[in-house]
This record gives sequence, structure tokens and C-alpha cells, in this order.
Amino acid sequence: MADALKIGVAGLGTVGASLVRIISERHENLATACGRAITVTAVSARDRTKDRGIDVTSATWYDDPAAMAREGDIDVLVELIGGASGAAKDAVNAALERGIHVVTANKALLAEDGVALAALAEEKGVLLNFEAAVAGGIPVIKAVRESLTGNTMTRVYGIMNGTCNYILTRMEKEGLSFEDCLKEAQRLGYAEADPSFDINGNDTAHKLAILTSLAFGCEISCDDIYLEGISNITQDDIRAAAELGYRIKLLGVAQRTGGGIEQRVHPTMVPHDTVIAQVDGVTNAVAIESDILGDLLMVGPGAGGDATASAVLGDIADIAKSRPGAQTVPALGRPAKSLEPYKRARMRSHEGGYFIRMRVADRIGVIAAIARRMADNQISLESIVQHSANGERDAPTKTIIMVTHATTELSIRNAVKAMESDGYIVGKPQVIRIEKP
Amino acid sequence: MADALKIGVAGLGTVGASLVRIISERHENLATACGRAITVTAVSARDRTKDRGIDVTSATWYDDPAAMAREGDIDVLVELIGGASGAAKDAVNAALERGIHVVTANKALLAEDGVALAALAEEKGVLLNFEAAVAGGIPVIKAVRESLTGNTMTRVYGIMNGTCNYILTRMEKEGLSFEDCLKEAQRLGYAEADPSFDINGNDTAHKLAILTSLAFGCEISCDDIYLEGISNITQDDIRAAAELGYRIKLLGVAQRTGGGIEQRVHPTMVPHDTVIAQVDGVTNAVAIESDILGDLLMVGPGAGGDATASAVLGDIADIAKSRPGAQTVPALGRPAKSLEPYKRARMRSHEGGYFIRMRVADRIGVIAAIARRMADNQISLESIVQHSANGERDAPTKTIIMVTHATTELSIRNAVKAMESDGYIVGKPQVIRIEKP
Repeated sequence: MADALKIGVAGLGTVGASLVRIISERHENLATACGRAITVTAVSARDRTKDRGIDVTSATWYDDPAAMAREGDIDVLVELIGGASGAAKDAVNAALERGIHVVTANKALLAEDGVALAALAEEKGVLLNFEAAVAGGIPVIKAVRESLTGNTMTRVYGIMNGTCNYILTRMEKEGLSFEDCLKEAQRLGYAEADPSFDINGNDTAHKLAILTSLAFGCEISCDDIYLEGISNITQDDIRAAAELGYRIKLLGVAQRTGGGIEQRVHPTMVPHDTVIAQVDGVTNAVAIESDILGDLLMVGPGAGGDATASAVLGDIADIAKSRPGAQTVPALGRPAKSLEPYKRARMRSHEGGYFIRMRVADRIGVIAAIARRMADNQISLESIVQHSANGERDAPTKTIIMVTHATTELSIRNAVKAMESDGYIVGKPQVIRIEKP
Repeated sequence: MADALKIGVAGLGTVGASLVRIISERHENLATACGRAITVTAVSARDRTKDRGIDVTSATWYDDPAAMAREGDIDVLVELIGGASGAAKDAVNAALERGIHVVTANKALLAEDGVALAALAEEKGVLLNFEAAVAGGIPVIKAVRESLTGNTMTRVYGIMNGTCNYILTRMEKEGLSFEDCLKEAQRLGYAEADPSFDINGNDTAHKLAILTSLAFGCEISCDDIYLEGISNITQDDIRAAAELGYRIKLLGVAQRTGGGIEQRVHPTMVPHDTVIAQVDGVTNAVAIESDILGDLLMVGPGAGGDATASAVLGDIADIAKSRPGAQTVPALGRPAKSLEPYKRARMRSHEGGYFIRMRVADRIGVIAAIARRMADNQISLESIVQHSANGERDAPTKTIIMVTHATTELSIRNAVKAMESDGYIVGKPQVIRIEKP
């Protein structure tokens, strides 16, 4: 049997502690599967005295992860610190510069610096693996990077944030408000004390940016993602969606269009009888549409210490199974310098169906006025219903819900603007995009 | 760039022709992704004169695929002939003996001889890749063999035969009989002229046997699979399932139990609101339950020339990306000689819920008699309904539908036997197992 693969783990939070425990508990199984042992020879974390329920006494301790990356007796740096800059970035760069493999779960770092890191890994002839960075335990990176080689991808989309999906699922099943479900998610540890990064869609955007690059062979561009969070989704939206045969999910979507690549994260109506609509709670799902294979959907745990550690372990095992210097798989699926520049498709050119819900003054001619504004903008309606909510029957306003056939974002924006200027709309109209598999 | 990887394609049916066409059309993309070109240098098929819509004039033609494997100027044999014996087996063995890599879509060959072939591949230091053999284009082999390394799997199950799923979906959506849906499937090319291999579950069994070995680290045992096909599923079953909140799918299931490994293929009730229940038509789905990652589900095309060719191409690309002699991934996830002997769990010990539908004589005391027989066998009922089908109201028989809580196969068999001996059952009771995620 070959020499043991020596691992340095930077960051001993939930995922890091899971990983160290699993490698220790399954030492023999891993050695059988990989043809060599996997040993944690070095660790680094902030607080050396903290009890994490794992034994790291046989590993060398480093206060500074970059020092471990530079000097540690390791073949692989496993970076589980997180964050786009600081210690994580320094450690990963130091490891690659030294010419050792890197496994990371750090979506922020990859979304910001993935292309440069991939280029450095290639230059040094080492692997940069990051299965855990996108959709946690779901092996979507491997699927896109390896299984789908030769395919031209047309669209990738998915539920990539468990916190948001948990909240939307609870809102639907229990009829609770967004605020109440968020509190529940925080109580259960599914949401952070400051949940804005999840709720506003930034976390999904990081994952989408990485996936977009792999799927379309372009440079990573996280800043070009259209972003809308879930905090303004109400029970009225959820109920109207259900009546129309839809469920609301926060999706990240990347799509090839004539004008470039569209990347967007927003609450989305998905048809109720599709597989992705049935993905509930903290579970994630990623769909990949490609021209040879067709449609592939992967569903699984998107977060959690063990699930994430499983993905990290898969990445480590891939390195253990390859002989030193033997791998030529580029980190982003093709050599970093052959990645195409990212060409952003303008959001106003987005094409699709739309759901529009608005309160309007209850007076004669309003429906006709609405219909005229839609027609003016060449928008064809699939349905329009006047909706009487509880207690609203005698109010001076009524609710109008419309679903459009495929149109453009610009047409919708123009139509809504025109209706607002007409003066019959009360409050702000709710506009939710529809995504069909 | 490294030298081109030279491919010999044995079998130019739908999949083989797709593969040759795709490799030719995407030559540049593949070279960029793999770091070297992929070239078809030899082909073999039965009829040299047949027009397949592809140009193979630059490849050397072999009438005998084994001769191509032995003597061809190739680095990889791609075996797309099919069948557990004869030309396919001879060619694969010849290639491995010679020490060249093999990519195959041949589930029958692997189900019969997979362990011996894996051992031979390891001995010769070459790869034996077979992603296309299980669930067509879905990268389930890669997920189990690579991504889930270190996990202990507890259950794998799935919809692995598109023909059966198409028929069951049509029966449900259109209210047609099994026979009519089968004819429709044959007309559309989803079913063979002789469909028995699909309909009886044998095709699913081959795929399950391979998956079981990979998931549980045991030898392949296709002969030990409990088998029940879909031909006796009726509209009455489908309707009763729908009423009770279930859909009927032909599943292959492999599961670790105290008594060994359970492998079974049979029509199964799955709860309506699960993701797998929404998988319709010819689409396949495979679920993998493991102890670190949790539950992973993959959904995609299980058959078709292009989808299968995509999986074959992914396998070829993995070889192209590795340097010669560099790979040590064993074909079945661990060295063939470290696979555990297959220990079969007896079907009578299977535990789960059951659906039972039977016609009984319409006389006083029958329900009480049924309930007593169930109680005698320690079977607890979730529901029991007396069902009056159309036109049955005045008949001297009525239909009883029961759903049980978890019990054993033996208890169910004994209870049904006892009820049959009681003399009130008309015809043969229908018993369908329930599977819950």
C-alpha cells in the first residue's frame, strides 16, 4: 500500500470537527477504498483550548493556518475557515504556491478568486477541489466537471440555500408569516443570528457564480448576478401560487441566451407537479440541462456538518486515489486561461412568464385599464383573476392576480410603471418570475 | 498537449453511433476539457455496409470486436454490443488481458461477471468504467464510487427502467390498461417487441445488482434478487393507491438488514408527496441513503442513444484526463478481493408496510374474519376500507383494501394464506409493498 495521504485541516468548526472525527473512525474503510491511508497530521484553528469532542493530539497544532500551509508536514490543505479574504485566502494561496493540493468548502473565496486560484493550481500541477462549496453534500461539481464532459449546458438552476427553502416551506405548510418562520429557523439553528446573507440571496449567488463558470466554461462573475431575496414574500403570494398550481422557491438560475449569460437569484414560481417543487425544508436541489444528456436533477442535503464533511471527504479521497502528480483535471473543468470572458445578459432582456399581484382601487374600468397596459406592452395573459381576500369584500380595494405567458422583463417593468402612473394601484405590486423545467 | 486518446468502439447501434458522432462534432471542446484529443481509431460492428449516418472511414474496421480489442491501435475499448456472453464478453476480456482500459454500458455482463472483470482490470492496472450500465445518463456510479467514499450506505433504491415507468405513468394519467400502455410504449420505441425483460424486472435487477455491490462493498449477486414485474398491476390498484395517497412505481431496492442484504425488484407504493413519486415517464431516479451524507436523489434520463452516449463519454473523458498508468480507482469502489461475500437476507424477513386489495364474498362476518387473521399474525392495520367499485354495488362480492403498518413478509404471507383457506376470498389477492423514503 502507498504512503498515507497527510491532511492539514484549517478550521475546526462544525464541518472541520466532523471531518476529523470521520477520518479517525473510518480509517480502515478509507484505506481500503483509496488504496492508502488518510491521516490528519496538522490542524489549525483559533482556540486551541476549546473542547470539540475530537482528539487532535497526534496532529501538529498551528495557530496560523497559512503557516500550516507553508510549513506543515501535509500533502493536502483542507480549508474550512470560510470568508473571501484573510486567513482562508492566505492559507489557500500559500498551499497552492507551495505545490500541495487544496480541498475547500469556501464558496465566497471561490466566487471572488476562483479563476486565479484555478490558474495557480494548474501552474503548480495540483488539484483544487471544492465539492462542498456548492449545494453542500450534493455531488454537483463532480457531475458538471466530470460526468457531463462534452455536453453543452443550456441552463443550471436550483434551490441552493437551505435556510430560505426551510422558511418558504414552513410558510406554505403552516400558514405563518416570513418573520415567524425566520425566528423558528434561527431557534433551530437553520438560520444565523444575522440571516441577511442567506435571506437576501447572497449565499445562493456565490454558489451560482461557481456553477455558472463550470457549466458554461466562462470566468466567474459574482458581481453580475441579479439579486432579490425572499423577505417580501407574503402569505398572499403563497396562497395565490398554490391556487394557480405553483410553489414559491428561491432559485439561483444561470442560462445561456442570445445576449450572453443570465445569472439571477430571486423568488420563483415553479409548477407544483415538477420534481423540484417537491423539495422541502433545508434540502437543496440542482438541475442541469445539457444538450446530450438532457435534464439531470440532484437532490440532497445542502448544509450541516456531516453532509458537508462527506463532500470534503469525497474530494480528499479523489486525491488519495490518484498518484502524486498524476491528475490533470483543471479545477474549473477546462484550463483557466481557456475560460471565456463572462458576458452578462441584461436582466431587462430576460424572457419568461410572470406572476403579478396587486391591490387596486375598486372602481369601474380598472380591469380594462390593466388589460390595455398589458396589451400595449405585447404581454399576453394566461390568466387574470379578481381575488376577494377575507374581510376585503367591502373594502374600497380589490386584489388582481395575473399570470402572463412568456414575455420580457422590460415589457413587465414598462407595463407595471404605466399602471402605476394610471393611479389605480394601491401599495406596491408584487412581481414574481415563473421558471419552468 | 498530450497524445490523443485512441478509442475503439465495438457496437454501432443507437448508442455507438451517437458516441462516434458526438466525439467527431465536439473534437475541440473535448480536447480543451481533457487536455488531449479523443479520436476514434477503430470500430467494429456486424454489418459494414449499413448507413448509420456517421463517417467511420478514417477508423480501422474490424468484423470481430475481440480482434479489435487484441490488435487494434487503441488505448480504450468502448464496448456497446451488450449481452452477458459472446462477442461483448470476449472483447472486454481481450482488452483487459492486453492491459487497455475498458468503458462499457453492458449491465448484463457486469451483473454476471463484474467481480472477475474488476479483478482483471486491477491486476492489469487499467480502468473499467461503466457509468452507462446503471440508470443511463444519471452519474450514479460516480456518486457512489467516488463522492460517497467513506460513507456507509444503508439503502439504495430507484426507478431504473424507463419502459416500466412510462407504462405505469400512462396507466395513471390516462386510465388505460397495462396492455394498452405497453402497446403504446412499443409504438413509440420505449419498449422492445419482446418486452418481457423490462416488464418482468430483469433489466432493473441487473442494474440493482451492480449498484448493490458498489454501495455495500459486497460481491455482485444478480441471482439472489427477489423479482416481481408490473404486468399484473391494474387500474384498480392505481386508483386505490391514489385514494390512499400513493403512486405505484417499479422499484429496485437494496438494503442492509440484520440478516444480510435484501435485494428486491417489485411494484411499490411510494407516498404521493415524495420527490421520487413525481418522477414520470421514461425518466429514471436513484436514491442513495448513507450515514454521513444523508439522502441523495438523482433524477435523469435512463435510456436513449444520446443520454447513454453522454455517460460513456464521461467515462472516456475520465481516462483521457488521467495520465497513463496513473489511476488506482478500483472498478467496484474497493479492490475486488476485498469485496465481502454476498449474504442474502431472506425475503420472508423483509419488513415494511403492505397494501392488500382483494375481492371477498359479500356476507356477514367477513371483515371480522379478515381482522382476526391479521391480528393472529401480529399485523397492525393503518386502514381498512370496503370499496364499492362501479357496478359492484349489487354484486355478491365486495372489494376490501387494507394498508398495514410495518410488518414482515412472512406475516403477510401467512395471513393471506389463512384468509384464503377461510374461503371468502374471490380470485387472487393483490399484495403490493410500500416503500417510504
